[in-house]
Amino acid sequence: MESYIKNPYEIEKKSFEIITKELGDRTFPHEIGKVVKRIIHTTADFTFADITVISDEAIKKAKEAIKAGKNIYTDTKMAMAGINKRRLAEFGGEVLNYVSDPDVALKAKEEGITRSIVAMRKAIKENPQGIFVIGNAPTALFELMKQIKEGNVNPSLVIGVPVGFVGAAESKEELLKLDVPYIVTRGRKGGSNVAAAIVNAVMYMI
Amino acid sequence: MESYIKNPYEIEKKSFEIITKELGDRTFPHEIGKVVKRIIHTTADFTFADITVISDEAIKKAKEAIKAGKNIYTDTKMAMAGINKRRLAEFGGEVLNYVSDPDVALKAKEEGITRSIVAMRKAIKENPQGIFVIGNAPTALFELMKQIKEGNVNPSLVIGVPVGFVGAAESKEELLKLDVPYIVTRGRKGGSNVAAAIVNAVMYMI
Repeated sequence: MESYIKNPYEIEKKSFEIITKELGDRTFPHEIGKVVKRIIHTTADFTFADITVISDEAIKKAKEAIKAGKNIYTDTKMAMAGINKRRLAEFGGEVLNYVSDPDVALKAKEEGITRSIVAMRKAIKENPQGIFVIGNAPTALFELMKQIKEGNVNPSLVIGVPVGFVGAAESKEELLKLDVPYIVTRGRKGGSNVAAAIVNAVMYMI
Repeated sequence: MESYIKNPYEIEKKSFEIITKELGDRTFPHEIGKVVKRIIHTTADFTFADITVISDEAIKKAKEAIKAGKNIYTDTKMAMAGINKRRLAEFGGEVLNYVSDPDVALKAKEEGITRSIVAMRKAIKENPQGIFVIGNAPTALFELMKQIKEGNVNPSLVIGVPVGFVGAAESKEELLKLDVPYIVTRGRKGGSNVAAAIVNAVMYMI
């Protein structure tokens, strides 16, 4: 048991070597590969190689937005926790999440809707050109898309990877039809961990 | 798009119905089923039904530990973020994570080891009867097991679900051999989201 690798850089390097090897013949354009491999690194689930869809130039636009210091709005505290905030701060950006704000909780209870919807409305109002990262709640993504269609919000990037059985797949199919820069995992899979991994992958490419 | 379910209780209820239906003939003892289903709810990944291993009476002991107000030590901020802290506080417990502490970062850098190892040492010193939750770093789990064998720590519960390609599977196989209450996901899969889901599943059973 004493012989295991304890150096974090060696662990990460070795992990990416294994992932690259096991992807075998599956190749991706360089920057897309970086995103896909970091998702697999986070989940140990190679099906993400098949379900990750990135719109034209989304990575380029994502890098520009992060370099410009745009703020990131997440739908969960978990996604927020997983994003490398020290790295983001170097570009001047912040990660924000309103899901636990007392006014959000109250409004959600009054209306019988998810706190994610109300938190998304608050984020949109604050920053219609922000980066929106949804790893958990399809309801947050549906609300965002509704407001995109209404012209209230024009995101720099949408990371749309909600997970689950009710609305997740449907919300992501809807996002694929919109003319915004997006990174999506089709179907049921995704998650706050996946969302954070994507943000970090983009930052590490800058 | 307007017809999607917006009520959080309905979404969760419907999700668990779908999971139960798709598990089909796969049945589990009641409380183990609750844990397995909440992991699937979090990941949309049914392979967790095959790889989740729970030691005899671990759920009973986990509930006792939480009811007794034992503190929970996680290996990541993400796992910490995913645990329902309001619920935990009702029992008097807290979630703690030392991975970003300046003394931990400094020591890890000096020794060329992961911050997870150093943070685990700090947690063990503080509370040798705590609940230890490892969703990411095999190195944290290896350190915990080393100290269990040395008699320095006697955990109330170990949730051992590190994810990844270097050491994760091996660390979990090692844990299966120890005489401590454990909840494990064998192989490469796991994660901070899975770790938090397990803690929440146990709390929601109390």
